[in-house]
Amino acid sequence: MLLRDILSHAVKLYPDKPALADGDGTFTYRQADERVRRLAAGLLNLGLKPGDHIAILANNSHRYWETYFVADIAGLPLAPLNIRLAAHELEFILNDGEIKALLLGMEFLEIYQQFREKTPGIEHVILMSGETRDGFVDYERLIAESDPLQGSVREWSEDDLLNLCYTGGTTGLPKGVMLSQRNVVSNAIHAVVTFGFSDRDTWLHVAPMFHLADAWACYAITMVGGTHSFVSAFTPQGTLEAIERHRVTKTILVPTMINFLVNFPGTAKYNTTSLDLILFGASPMSTDRLLAAVRVFGPKFCQAYGMTETSPLLTGMKLDWMCYDGNENDMRRLSSCGRQVAGVDVRVVNEGGDDVKPGEVGEIIARGPNVMKGYWKRPKETAEALQGGYMHTGDVATIDQENFIYIVDRAKDMIISGGENVYSVEVENALYEHPAVLEVAVIGVPDANWGEAVLAVVVPKEGANITEHELIEHCHGLIAGYKCPKSVIFQDTPLPKSGPGKILKTELRKPYWEGRERKVN
Amino acid sequence: MLLRDILSHAVKLYPDKPALADGDGTFTYRQADERVRRLAAGLLNLGLKPGDHIAILANNSHRYWETYFVADIAGLPLAPLNIRLAAHELEFILNDGEIKALLLGMEFLEIYQQFREKTPGIEHVILMSGETRDGFVDYERLIAESDPLQGSVREWSEDDLLNLCYTGGTTGLPKGVMLSQRNVVSNAIHAVVTFGFSDRDTWLHVAPMFHLADAWACYAITMVGGTHSFVSAFTPQGTLEAIERHRVTKTILVPTMINFLVNFPGTAKYNTTSLDLILFGASPMSTDRLLAAVRVFGPKFCQAYGMTETSPLLTGMKLDWMCYDGNENDMRRLSSCGRQVAGVDVRVVNEGGDDVKPGEVGEIIARGPNVMKGYWKRPKETAEALQGGYMHTGDVATIDQENFIYIVDRAKDMIISGGENVYSVEVENALYEHPAVLEVAVIGVPDANWGEAVLAVVVPKEGANITEHELIEHCHGLIAGYKCPKSVIFQDTPLPKSGPGKILKTELRKPYWEGRERKVN
Repeated sequence: MLLRDILSHAVKLYPDKPALADGDGTFTYRQADERVRRLAAGLLNLGLKPGDHIAILANNSHRYWETYFVADIAGLPLAPLNIRLAAHELEFILNDGEIKALLLGMEFLEIYQQFREKTPGIEHVILMSGETRDGFVDYERLIAESDPLQGSVREWSEDDLLNLCYTGGTTGLPKGVMLSQRNVVSNAIHAVVTFGFSDRDTWLHVAPMFHLADAWACYAITMVGGTHSFVSAFTPQGTLEAIERHRVTKTILVPTMINFLVNFPGTAKYNTTSLDLILFGASPMSTDRLLAAVRVFGPKFCQAYGMTETSPLLTGMKLDWMCYDGNENDMRRLSSCGRQVAGVDVRVVNEGGDDVKPGEVGEIIARGPNVMKGYWKRPKETAEALQGGYMHTGDVATIDQENFIYIVDRAKDMIISGGENVYSVEVENALYEHPAVLEVAVIGVPDANWGEAVLAVVVPKEGANITEHELIEHCHGLIAGYKCPKSVIFQDTPLPKSGPGKILKTELRKPYWEGRERKVN
Repeated sequence: MLLRDILSHAVKLYPDKPALADGDGTFTYRQADERVRRLAAGLLNLGLKPGDHIAILANNSHRYWETYFVADIAGLPLAPLNIRLAAHELEFILNDGEIKALLLGMEFLEIYQQFREKTPGIEHVILMSGETRDGFVDYERLIAESDPLQGSVREWSEDDLLNLCYTGGTTGLPKGVMLSQRNVVSNAIHAVVTFGFSDRDTWLHVAPMFHLADAWACYAITMVGGTHSFVSAFTPQGTLEAIERHRVTKTILVPTMINFLVNFPGTAKYNTTSLDLILFGASPMSTDRLLAAVRVFGPKFCQAYGMTETSPLLTGMKLDWMCYDGNENDMRRLSSCGRQVAGVDVRVVNEGGDDVKPGEVGEIIARGPNVMKGYWKRPKETAEALQGGYMHTGDVATIDQENFIYIVDRAKDMIISGGENVYSVEVENALYEHPAVLEVAVIGVPDANWGEAVLAVVVPKEGANITEHELIEHCHGLIAGYKCPKSVIFQDTPLPKSGPGKILKTELRKPYWEGRERKVN
């Protein structure tokens, strides 16, 4: 099955049903399909050739959904770009990913001007606003002026690259995760079988659509002929309005969003009873906060766990498995990220590669048709990640007698702040570029709003004169804002190290996490 | 995904949940898995080699379910045999299919004795009763005395032959439909996505499990961790008792069974409220009879359509699409077999291969990962059936604006009587073996109980003296009872023929079908 088959099935069964509900505009599946085919023709008319790479940098909208399907219909593998990256990070990705055309949300015009000169490979920039500007192609005009592309411009194989999704890398440079048609279609199937989506569902795309944590629902909800609704960028009010207006039944949120909704004074004024499932994931959420959310929205929350490299779903809870008034074991289960989704083999293994016993700690590894082809142009890192045919997630977990999985730590040195992955090494590299820094370690510390906040422990060079503010500002010039330290601690003794000289971050974290579990997914 | 992955997923998520509920016995998924692995080891210990073909001839039971999974675990492709066939038909299949071992229900011991001498390739016969007999292997003893097979004895590819399912052939000889791992696993996925099965479901296997019309549910219900319950052979009382006892939620019935249940005087005494979906298919059912069934069981009926060659599902109705108090169009839709299931491309095409317009008549063709590998040792018939990458069903249908499909006739000369396919040519061949028959045509005529009944129109040789009873008896010696004519009409004028000399069965059928539509699936 290809992505196009998902769309054509929905068009065949639900031609006149709302596919996309965005603000005041609604498109039926027939109309959405026609827009996709017109846009595909328009992009090819610009001179793009099937197989060329394109990218999108935009907030959520029905156009984002369209772009995901255009990748298949026009034969143009798509890189969805993290909207929070700094200009020079985007520059790196656009060059590394050999991007020929960029679909650009109006809200990113300014950042685009910063890297424009440094991305000479980009031949076309398509503005998604419906506004015409010199030097840019207008998305809506492409649609209006092109005849729908019929048939196939490219012989797709299920193993061909469809999406190139950049994630932060432990080496400090973003890596392009290569996802094939089979990867994303399989994940959609796994999701439908596991969560039981149907044509009665309306999904709210409010988590950023560049991230697979939400993007997979573009495919899964279309597969069953459900309706998609959109919030361009999260605000509590915008989200609640959309839920009420479109009678949203299901969505995925990051815990930070859930916190905002729970604490928003107007929440009770909105009718959110249509919701029957709120998935959450991508960052830690304590049982206390979960219970607070349940008091506001009802027992509709289920944790899911995955990663870009696995398209993304690996595990999920089900409502039937969430027991709120049970014994200690049941209460503990509320913090589980669930069990393997159908179609994926998820294991927790020790260093020898054997399954751990219940309660023991090990690394999560996974095998299935959803596991990436590899990292773009990085054969060595690909081979490492996919040893023995399993994706090695680097996430550390326990598993219980009934195969519920509990994430306890991340082997990869990563902080999750507000749902975003921050690789410590990237932040450390930025700090090391400051002449006053002798040694630095970046760790995550508990934060009520963001799950974790980025903290830098810095040993300054002898005689250097430097302030916290100065170092944070220095970082802002180099990396995305969400990656910059929220605070900096100075010390003049060397950082604690292991025998072979590796900085012992566990030691540094200890005072901040005393009495808490750093439970993360 | 392989069949074993479906089972191991269920064992991982639902180890202690009832998998199989059969009479008084219940096995959890862990226990069922262990039984399958013990049986697999036992079969291999007999001397069977991975890749050898095995067959099963038995009524429904949890052991039938086990045998389907053993095929994968032991690496032994399985031929499930039609329990209604005559001895010499079974003989043909067992030899043609190169069967090395036969799993035999006690109830088929007598018929086995009839073909025993003529099937020398069968090295082992496993009696499924739990009874020990000289010359036979005991199924339960194999399980009790073998250690569970761990790991893999065979490197399966998704395209390897898993099931060899014989169907009647238009040439008069049964053909072995080769289904691969991919075929049956894909069909299970299509079913779950389309019908929304979940771990809350309990399925009743009451339609014969040798037939894919029910067998696919062995895979689909296991995929979601549901429970399987069994009725060994249909009776109204046995079926109703099982529904009440096991709180059955879903099943598939042939219309003949539905008629029996509707007319059974004791039906109202049983609690059948747990049922939420009754699929039906495999033979015609008028809207009047459907409405009668709805009055007894509620609006829980949905027609499905498929064939062995497509593992089997091609189309299905959904409860939401069944409108009982609507306009003429809605009422007409009650007779539809639904729309293509997710994952399959189903089209109705004219002789040029183009999609027909709504209301026009054409042949149903289908493409998808569920379409068979081909017919065993019949490359010519395989190539014909799979022209252009589509399975040519031979079934004639119309399709409406919203892609609902209505089957109107079968291009292949076939009668469906009580859910069983009767190929006219087989019956005609049997009749032609009688010395008194000059010319014969076999057709289906309306029958309140069986949907259609088999009628033979015979032109006797000049001076021949022959009775209806004699001809029917003659057939009983040659073909399965359900294929034998229910009645014979004699005429002494030649049968009506087309220009090229083809018998015009439409002419012969006309008086019987006057004022009715021969609507069949």
